[in-house]
Amino acid sequence: MRRDASSELIKKLDLEKVSGLLDIPDYRLTGAIERKTLQHVASRPELFRFDKPISSVEGGTSIFIEPFDIVRGFPKIQRTLVLYPGLVTHFSSCNKVAVEEKMNGYNTRLALVGDELVGLTRGGFLCPYTTEKANELVGLEFFLDHPDLVICGEMVGPDSPYVPKSIYDIESLDFFAFDVREKISGKPMPVMERRGLMEEYGINSARFFGEYDVEEAHNEITGIIKGFGDSLHEGVVIKDPQMVITPVKYTSSLSNCADLRYAFEFYNDYGRDFFFPRVCREAFQSMEWDEDEESRRKRCLRLGESILLPMIETIKKKKNGERIAEKVQIRVKNLKTALDFETHLRVLGVDAVFEEPEQIGDEYLIRIRKIYHSTNDKTESILRGEMWS
Amino acid sequence: MRRDASSELIKKLDLEKVSGLLDIPDYRLTGAIERKTLQHVASRPELFRFDKPISSVEGGTSIFIEPFDIVRGFPKIQRTLVLYPGLVTHFSSCNKVAVEEKMNGYNTRLALVGDELVGLTRGGFLCPYTTEKANELVGLEFFLDHPDLVICGEMVGPDSPYVPKSIYDIESLDFFAFDVREKISGKPMPVMERRGLMEEYGINSARFFGEYDVEEAHNEITGIIKGFGDSLHEGVVIKDPQMVITPVKYTSSLSNCADLRYAFEFYNDYGRDFFFPRVCREAFQSMEWDEDEESRRKRCLRLGESILLPMIETIKKKKNGERIAEKVQIRVKNLKTALDFETHLRVLGVDAVFEEPEQIGDEYLIRIRKIYHSTNDKTESILRGEMWS
Repeated sequence: MRRDASSELIKKLDLEKVSGLLDIPDYRLTGAIERKTLQHVASRPELFRFDKPISSVEGGTSIFIEPFDIVRGFPKIQRTLVLYPGLVTHFSSCNKVAVEEKMNGYNTRLALVGDELVGLTRGGFLCPYTTEKANELVGLEFFLDHPDLVICGEMVGPDSPYVPKSIYDIESLDFFAFDVREKISGKPMPVMERRGLMEEYGINSARFFGEYDVEEAHNEITGIIKGFGDSLHEGVVIKDPQMVITPVKYTSSLSNCADLRYAFEFYNDYGRDFFFPRVCREAFQSMEWDEDEESRRKRCLRLGESILLPMIETIKKKKNGERIAEKVQIRVKNLKTALDFETHLRVLGVDAVFEEPEQIGDEYLIRIRKIYHSTNDKTESILRGEMWS
Repeated sequence: MRRDASSELIKKLDLEKVSGLLDIPDYRLTGAIERKTLQHVASRPELFRFDKPISSVEGGTSIFIEPFDIVRGFPKIQRTLVLYPGLVTHFSSCNKVAVEEKMNGYNTRLALVGDELVGLTRGGFLCPYTTEKANELVGLEFFLDHPDLVICGEMVGPDSPYVPKSIYDIESLDFFAFDVREKISGKPMPVMERRGLMEEYGINSARFFGEYDVEEAHNEITGIIKGFGDSLHEGVVIKDPQMVITPVKYTSSLSNCADLRYAFEFYNDYGRDFFFPRVCREAFQSMEWDEDEESRRKRCLRLGESILLPMIETIKKKKNGERIAEKVQIRVKNLKTALDFETHLRVLGVDAVFEEPEQIGDEYLIRIRKIYHSTNDKTESILRGEMWS
């Protein structure tokens, strides 16, 4: 970025105020703007977002300009590959842990900015679609009473344009809270207090499995994960009931493999980094569960099929002249939301083709095809006879 | 590197001569020495090696100082993921292609430097073990008649400290030529001329399958690869008989999976970049062979098992307190070679534990354990209950 362009942007920020509230020296803020780590986004309302963490500020933190506000990013949740001794080691200072479902959708934060309820993505962008849905599904009531709080939760269902899933018996899209935090400090609320508060306002929470002794939790959670069976439920998040110690996540093999199936359909766009950690999870789980030969064989077949079958399918599609794309859909009341969402995807660098809206009741269903260029190009070039490298 | 240290090194090189012979400006040579891309190695004879390619000079090219000489690196061979139209596209200017076996061992170049026959690794290091073996298996005769030529070939067998394999009915170690090139220019000799020359001197060549019409080669090669069956033969290299067009390689699924099995035993030392291209090869081969459901299932199971089983084994070993190490062995006539080889591995950054030599006939067998620190540390930390990230 040219230095004069960044100095124009810097003028938009009240550096002293932001520096004080986020406890970060102002020269680091200006440096971050110059390097585009703190990135201006011309959404409405316009904002700056942290593309990566800087000192103690999470990536995805959004700073709104007019009206001024800050919504802290959602912290990365660490993952354990073995329940024992992973949990006793991590939660050594707790007696109990609370276990909630990790749902398979997309992470969003809902907060009041001025007098508008906005929906933010994990990366700190304002998502016009999430915003319309948040207003419809959650509404303003809670936020008018608690303007300083943000609700973190999962948007789940088939009408999700990011992670469309039909595994929860949700017709279109629904929201499930899993965290309430102070907007500016990011300080979380204790688990049961938060669940009670959500219930008061009629807001869904992610499923609660129970509170368990730390020493026993690995057995209980193994039971929960095995109980998911073939249902594709993603996994659990294990929390200090007081939310002083940071949470830990643990996922099921089926959801792991479902992720791989998705990624290898678009192998050259995802692929590399996606693969390795997921394979490691499988190996450690097989060891911890002390699997016999037959269970191990099934796990290997499942892994192999999750990787190869979607990729073979993609190659065959390309051979038949099809374009490799992911089909998603959104359902909106307001056609302007769809237009804004189209702009939002363009800002994210996603090439998406929007079909004509189809009116269903008082809503519009809009089918979208996301084009995966790298996978299209690589597959095409190999089928044309070009060398791999 | 401190600039004065590199200027000491630069003095060792006759820059004008090297620059002329390799057709590369001398400032690029000095820059490469400063950046350690052109790296000094204190072997005997001492040399400089190109750690990466620079303009048209291959990575692995070695420049000897006293006596002065240059051995060009072995060029990277491109890979096709589909035989058709891969071969007709790449070899469009040829009528025929020659097909030779790609053996599973390690790539070495043998050349005369002064009056000594030396064995170089792919990376351009002088390997003391390969040098002893080259003198024993190939000898000086050829090189005294052709001091300007280098023989490129595969060292194969169970007594290989780099890629130990027992798949060829070789008792200890053997050498198979697959290329003869001019030492300084790297210019290759036509296939049949080279094979004839090797035969004259009683030097083994890699197996020759035949010369095929370019338009027919994909069928012939599919037959060859399928004919390997369960034998773990690695694959084939397809060549322009005149060696004007560069060669192309194609490998079997079994050898692909054998590579994965090896890499995932030491998953945190290999892993990431190792995996992705191998999976892509499997998917394209399955598509090209138009496999039915049952063959595809077998391929998926083979892939999954190649990834997970060695990794599960590694985790279990670690849980039982074992150290994760690869067992290899060398067989030498001269104990000094083993000592020099130990130094060589240290220069390569390999942590290896050498056992006491065991005398067998007029030779010494020495067992070596290569310690994979990253895999040891990662596995240990997860089993201790630390988070993945």
